[in-house]
Amino acid sequence: MPAKAKSARRPRTSSRPAEPSAFTARRPRAFLQGFANGLNVIRSFGPQTSAMTLSEVAKLNGLTRAAARRILLTMQELGYVEAHGRTFQLRPKVLDLGYAYLSSISWIGIAQPIVEDIVAKTRMPCNGSVLDNQDIIYVLRVSTRVEIRADLAISIGRRFPAYLTAMGRTLLSGLPPQDFEDYLASATIAPLTRRTVSNPAALRKVIASDRAQGWSFVNQEHATGICSIGVPLRDARARTFAALGIGWVVTDESPEKTRDRVLPVLLAAATAINRLLRVHGSVSGP
Amino acid sequence: MPAKAKSARRPRTSSRPAEPSAFTARRPRAFLQGFANGLNVIRSFGPQTSAMTLSEVAKLNGLTRAAARRILLTMQELGYVEAHGRTFQLRPKVLDLGYAYLSSISWIGIAQPIVEDIVAKTRMPCNGSVLDNQDIIYVLRVSTRVEIRADLAISIGRRFPAYLTAMGRTLLSGLPPQDFEDYLASATIAPLTRRTVSNPAALRKVIASDRAQGWSFVNQEHATGICSIGVPLRDARARTFAALGIGWVVTDESPEKTRDRVLPVLLAAATAINRLLRVHGSVSGP
Repeated sequence: MPAKAKSARRPRTSSRPAEPSAFTARRPRAFLQGFANGLNVIRSFGPQTSAMTLSEVAKLNGLTRAAARRILLTMQELGYVEAHGRTFQLRPKVLDLGYAYLSSISWIGIAQPIVEDIVAKTRMPCNGSVLDNQDIIYVLRVSTRVEIRADLAISIGRRFPAYLTAMGRTLLSGLPPQDFEDYLASATIAPLTRRTVSNPAALRKVIASDRAQGWSFVNQEHATGICSIGVPLRDARARTFAALGIGWVVTDESPEKTRDRVLPVLLAAATAINRLLRVHGSVSGP
Repeated sequence: MPAKAKSARRPRTSSRPAEPSAFTARRPRAFLQGFANGLNVIRSFGPQTSAMTLSEVAKLNGLTRAAARRILLTMQELGYVEAHGRTFQLRPKVLDLGYAYLSSISWIGIAQPIVEDIVAKTRMPCNGSVLDNQDIIYVLRVSTRVEIRADLAISIGRRFPAYLTAMGRTLLSGLPPQDFEDYLASATIAPLTRRTVSNPAALRKVIASDRAQGWSFVNQEHATGICSIGVPLRDARARTFAALGIGWVVTDESPEKTRDRVLPVLLAAATAINRLLRVHGSVSGP
């Protein structure tokens, strides 16, 4: 998978990785370059690029003006983009695409009311995420009245490098051993704080310990003052397919004390969800 | 816009409309049919179609097996889909597409903490939505510990016909008069309960009244036992670009009493958001 290997080597601290549209690696003969370029154009819109001219879209995606024009006209015709003067903006119909994924993963509906319970008991927002190569992606969030950092405001679809968050560590500890070694070999792992476990051998040890204890705890490795805990959701064959997690800003209470207060609630909820999923049958979606 | 006119005439009670891939109307010469088909394939995945064979994808999208195969292989290569035996499932990377839209609309980050305040004060979940042709689409949701109907669990990206919800009525009342007449001429408006205002003349009157009073109230027109109120978010030029709303299940308290309790909080919050948006400058995104 040349595309995967390529993106794996690129450092990823941004929330939404761009993808090169001029593929240098060999693609299967059936590959639809126009479709791939179109998906990249959608992904190239973001906080700093909410309105772009044709030239800007072309430049940002490594496309000719003619190719970018065909993509934008097609999107406009289908209602995914609209023009204001010379600039193009995404239209809300783009959400249908993400919604297609969310509505196709059956466990979210089952987990949601139990996650609501977690939030009621802990008074902390709770998230659900899945692994996508080197990142975790938020697929569920129940918030509450707490201090919320502005950059966490938009959550569903948000990406974080897996090794930096407790949910990510939980998901990594659920990987088959060879998949975890592949992750270590390909991921960009860099220290973001003085506490970050970024050495592969040390990370292997942490993951083994997390696997044994059945939960993960990250103490200010992503950012100073931010902690998180994560627990696995498992299907009938005991495979981890998602993680639930709670993150918080450190207060006067020690991170360990907060963890010990919140973890039992999270573990009990995960057990309840896992049991329900076994009753409801197979889990669809990765 | 033949595609828009077509979808406008199709009844829409489902959450995610399918789109015909075999276009009968004339398309601009630059139209990328493969890209359009690919986007339709993504949208064709959902709760009942979370795992599909190649043949099922082809049939559901009106494609040849060869065309469906090229689309699925391209998506697989890019990490948007994965194969399990003979079936294909969406991968979480699809969320990047919806996230591109959410992260490109600047007002969400500004509105979020104020919406959190609404939820803290009312103890009711609060939503934000925008208009997309005949539908509203949820782009923001802050939930709380209340009874949540399972079918409302996945909210961001959810569609509802505009005339059935208070946020939709708010958004319709913010349309320029000719755009509202176009809506009336093209929308499929049918009564879902005995209270639904589905007569165009009556709806025109309700919308005019909502415009004058600056908010909307829908009393069990969508479903018996479900009420909602909606208020507009307006940009510096006083154009309505989004709505905030609260919906609830009727309890012992009369719908009007709940409305009168909650509406002032919602109106004050909308005023605060509108003021902040004028300070922060232009609103990006429709």
